[in-house]
Amino acid sequence: MDFLEKLKKAIEKNNSLLSIGLDPDLTKIPPHLQQTKDWIFEFNKGIIDTTHDLVCTYKPNIAFYSSLGVYGTQSLHKTIEYIHSEYIDIPVILDAKRGDIGNTAEKYAEEVFDVFEADAVTVSPYLGLDSLEPFLKRKEKGIIILCKTSNKSTIDFQDLEVDGNPLYIHVAEKVVEWNKTYQNCLLVTGALWPEQLKKIREIASDMFFLVPGIGTQGGDLENTLKNGLTKDKSGLIISSSRGILYASDGKDFAEKAREEAQKLKDSINQYR
Amino acid sequence: MDFLEKLKKAIEKNNSLLSIGLDPDLTKIPPHLQQTKDWIFEFNKGIIDTTHDLVCTYKPNIAFYSSLGVYGTQSLHKTIEYIHSEYIDIPVILDAKRGDIGNTAEKYAEEVFDVFEADAVTVSPYLGLDSLEPFLKRKEKGIIILCKTSNKSTIDFQDLEVDGNPLYIHVAEKVVEWNKTYQNCLLVTGALWPEQLKKIREIASDMFFLVPGIGTQGGDLENTLKNGLTKDKSGLIISSSRGILYASDGKDFAEKAREEAQKLKDSINQYR
Repeated sequence: MDFLEKLKKAIEKNNSLLSIGLDPDLTKIPPHLQQTKDWIFEFNKGIIDTTHDLVCTYKPNIAFYSSLGVYGTQSLHKTIEYIHSEYIDIPVILDAKRGDIGNTAEKYAEEVFDVFEADAVTVSPYLGLDSLEPFLKRKEKGIIILCKTSNKSTIDFQDLEVDGNPLYIHVAEKVVEWNKTYQNCLLVTGALWPEQLKKIREIASDMFFLVPGIGTQGGDLENTLKNGLTKDKSGLIISSSRGILYASDGKDFAEKAREEAQKLKDSINQYR
Repeated sequence: MDFLEKLKKAIEKNNSLLSIGLDPDLTKIPPHLQQTKDWIFEFNKGIIDTTHDLVCTYKPNIAFYSSLGVYGTQSLHKTIEYIHSEYIDIPVILDAKRGDIGNTAEKYAEEVFDVFEADAVTVSPYLGLDSLEPFLKRKEKGIIILCKTSNKSTIDFQDLEVDGNPLYIHVAEKVVEWNKTYQNCLLVTGALWPEQLKKIREIASDMFFLVPGIGTQGGDLENTLKNGLTKDKSGLIISSSRGILYASDGKDFAEKAREEAQKLKDSINQYR
């Protein structure tokens, strides 16, 4: 089953557009887990076991793992393997924002899809189509291209005006064009920018968007949904990480994470 | 010693602007090494031992290692450690093209500088300044920002016209501005584009540029040097990988690599 099909089924089964960002941080996890041998996996497993019926995807960001060296890399592998084996219906997006020239991009595609066996990946558009083709040609995978990201410095380049429109609009237009060939593209559109999301939705009327920035980063949920939903009340993957993961630092961390996930899922559905 | 100082000393000591890209590929290395337990390290060590007096930096691209999972990651670590211990004068650029929002960028900076102990890193500008600050604030490290890359699809976005100039020019201008604060910036300018390099040199008159694309990728060495050198006949790090690494697939691979490195170093110096 390809990524988009798996995603749509998970959305339907769990009635959810929520994605949980699995970004484990030793300084924030419960103290009782900090002592365990594999604290990353124990923490992730706790979160996954209590939330798997509330989400449409999990989204580990590889930086939180690779910053811990070999141990982190192994725990990321174990985490993805665990989701695939226990909760096969939930696709895994590896947030990696890769972007390099062709022969190197091939190696990154191997890292993401063959080593870690992710169902989808985030990539950067700056180098253009030939840097993305090694990902795009993996037709069963989801390729999620940065468009208007969830940080303030998007004004530096993404907002620069090209032929009367900001650069991120040109990125969206190109991705729509490439998607005619590959049919596995998605876009990243940060929740800080609901007005810009509206413009991007006009260009990519039925494409899925990954929307980070809800929660700690202060994104606007109501307008994100209002401006971003497709006609069939779908088309968005709303990602939250810290607000869910670190709801409690006690032994009840997983239950509290579930409560936060349930709340956010319900808030999202309220606007659908 | 900070990266730029270390780089300048290596350029002077070895009279070289050549950087060797350490991108090991199992399908291209000599058959007798394919059987060894740690083929990556054995191959890299062979190349490093015969070329360390001909280069100003080594530049492993992390994708060639992470695509091999934990084994590759360990061998990258071992390779960088080997250069630091045996050839302390030669700085190591980790070609990683990272780019993510602030708190994640912090984690990537830890990956590159704390886990792998690289002296410099390549990063993508697409997300803007706040995504680069976690790197830039490591003032002793070199932060090498993609500007005009060495692939054909740079026409998709990097060449788009903003206020009468292509996007990559705006990237160069911003980096020059940021460099006033951080003083550790460099730019990536591919050797496929010597005319564009000339324009970038006009904006960043004394900044170092990392120039990939010589050799297999078909870059124009003479015009790269003519248009890219600073007034003191420096300012360029000319990177070559496949053309040197795979000069022979026999037991003489390291000696043949040295011959190719010597030739390229001499060609570069001929135009200085």
